Amino acid sequence: MPPLKTIAWIANAVRIVDQTRLPDELVYRDITTVEDMVESIKTLRIRGAPAIGIAAAFGMYLAMRDFPETGSRADFLTLTDKNADFLAQSRPTAVNLFWAIERVREAIAGSSNPGGIAAMKRRMLDKALAMLEEDRAACRFIGEHGFELLKACKNILTHCNAGGLAASEYGTALAPVYVGKERGTVFHVYADETRPLLQGSRITAFELHAAGIPVTVICDSMAAALMRNRAVDAVIVGADRIAANGDVANKIGTYGVALSAQAHGVPFYVAAPLSTFDARILSGDEIPIEQRGEDEVACGFGRRTAPEGVRVYNPAFDVTPAELVTAIITERGVVRPPYGETIPRLLDNLRQAR
Amino acid sequence: MPPLKTIAWIANAVRIVDQTRLPDELVYRDITTVEDMVESIKTLRIRGAPAIGIAAAFGMYLAMRDFPETGSRADFLTLTDKNADFLAQSRPTAVNLFWAIERVREAIAGSSNPGGIAAMKRRMLDKALAMLEEDRAACRFIGEHGFELLKACKNILTHCNAGGLAASEYGTALAPVYVGKERGTVFHVYADETRPLLQGSRITAFELHAAGIPVTVICDSMAAALMRNRAVDAVIVGADRIAANGDVANKIGTYGVALSAQAHGVPFYVAAPLSTFDARILSGDEIPIEQRGEDEVACGFGRRTAPEGVRVYNPAFDVTPAELVTAIITERGVVRPPYGETIPRLLDNLRQAR
Repeated sequence: MPPLKTIAWIANAVRIVDQTRLPDELVYRDITTVEDMVESIKTLRIRGAPAIGIAAAFGMYLAMRDFPETGSRADFLTLTDKNADFLAQSRPTAVNLFWAIERVREAIAGSSNPGGIAAMKRRMLDKALAMLEEDRAACRFIGEHGFELLKACKNILTHCNAGGLAASEYGTALAPVYVGKERGTVFHVYADETRPLLQGSRITAFELHAAGIPVTVICDSMAAALMRNRAVDAVIVGADRIAANGDVANKIGTYGVALSAQAHGVPFYVAAPLSTFDARILSGDEIPIEQRGEDEVACGFGRRTAPEGVRVYNPAFDVTPAELVTAIITERGVVRPPYGETIPRLLDNLRQAR
Repeated sequence: MPPLKTIAWIANAVRIVDQTRLPDELVYRDITTVEDMVESIKTLRIRGAPAIGIAAAFGMYLAMRDFPETGSRADFLTLTDKNADFLAQSRPTAVNLFWAIERVREAIAGSSNPGGIAAMKRRMLDKALAMLEEDRAACRFIGEHGFELLKACKNILTHCNAGGLAASEYGTALAPVYVGKERGTVFHVYADETRPLLQGSRITAFELHAAGIPVTVICDSMAAALMRNRAVDAVIVGADRIAANGDVANKIGTYGVALSAQAHGVPFYVAAPLSTFDARILSGDEIPIEQRGEDEVACGFGRRTAPEGVRVYNPAFDVTPAELVTAIITERGVVRPPYGETIPRLLDNLRQAR
């Protein structure tokens, strides 16, 4: 089991693990306002596509819970829309954010309004709580499907953190590792440190180590040489958005890892819940890529590491084209190429089942 | 012109730029003993294959200069051998180190010994000074040959530092950039920051910025995405050792950059003086790869970035196979595939010319 509750609803607050403090300190933070939620998402106190989605859902409720119960429904909806926009601008790449906000809005849409404002607030909170539970279940299923794919492997490489700390419990990319541990199969994980913000060395290594799973930290630049030395049996990563054709936006550096995996015949798996798929986006070229500040690269360790006045390029994500992706592991099973056919079919089936 | 004298013989000391202090401070260090030289090479105060070679040559002289002039030639040679071994164990991968030590030993070999101990010491110093001058000239020629290859490019990507601070003046990989500037062609250089020790952001960015050449720092993991966005016209890197078949050992991460370059049709050039070739080594598999300490990765910036107790893998170099190398730029011209033929021919011609 992963060691921590990344996000929980406790005593009328969203309790998160403040991931900017890892691995030095394990600090929880109780978020009670939408402003603090937006700040926490922007600064990556809470991060990882599934966790951002859940956080945003709770953020919608936090934004509205002090709305007067005597107020009008129209005003409530107008203010909800405004807060949806406020939350949506916090990070542009992960689609789970927009998806989650939309689901909370749907929960209070419709023409009848039994119970008035109080009931609308309750439906918002219930939706957020339901999404937290759904994510937990989805990660568990991803873990089981992923474990079937990986169980013959010894050494697995991952980039960034798509573990329990990126979601509600098992995570996505690390879920098969946790399921394996429960079933007596202990993988050894190479964690790319993942510059600039070191989610791999700070967070992936932290959670795996805490769960008793052997982990070796490497610099991102070492993955190719490791694969050449045949030290990696499979790569598994998460995703921030998956286009209809199977192109995958994920943490910057994922694409280089995928190129190396292809060059060495190492399978490259993406693990993501269905909420990460964006059927309206036909290819990765259309996915907006967040650009972040220069100081994350130039002085990210409390010390200046590049000279003053030098330019820095700092995209937070890259796009791995579908042809480099061996399979995508979802809570509804494993999707394989040709993604242009298999992904729309999966999403259609899901829509019909609802 | 590159801005700094990386290594110079001034007032009976070897004056180096202490590269562990960059980019915060430009600090020179006067080295007067072989012990300090070994420590300075091990801790990367002085680094870069050509500079290490020159430093070791001076180190040989520093080791012997206090030998009594009334001592015996046999004792002198025995102590020289001992110090050669001491210097040789400082870093295992760069062949220039061994080559330089050997050349200083050759300078005092031979059966006749006119001038006694004093003359032997003088010949050691003269050899080190000659090698400094040779390296300066070699880098200049590399710059000219490289400029011919690169002059149609706008954006060049480099990994680690093979600039003026890795050699005596122009450097190797950056020499064409400096030659270009003199001739009115200003390239824009992407500098991979080069984890774990950040020679790219600390040193390459520093020297290019000081020389008025536009430079943009990126994390190592961003190079592949940049190439996919067609933002890179050519890659040029240095080398620590080149095998007879053209396999290139260079700073860890070089291999991943070469894989990305190949995937995007970007030419991948290696710039190195002939002293970097090791004709006795048939392929890159035989090149010893230095493993460095865990703390360089886990707490390299004065702050712990990976949890205590987690394993770290930290090879300092990797090997790029010859088939990924478009051309190798030397002071005697440009070598192209098939390297198994062209490299031995180049080295044979050189031997015959001597």
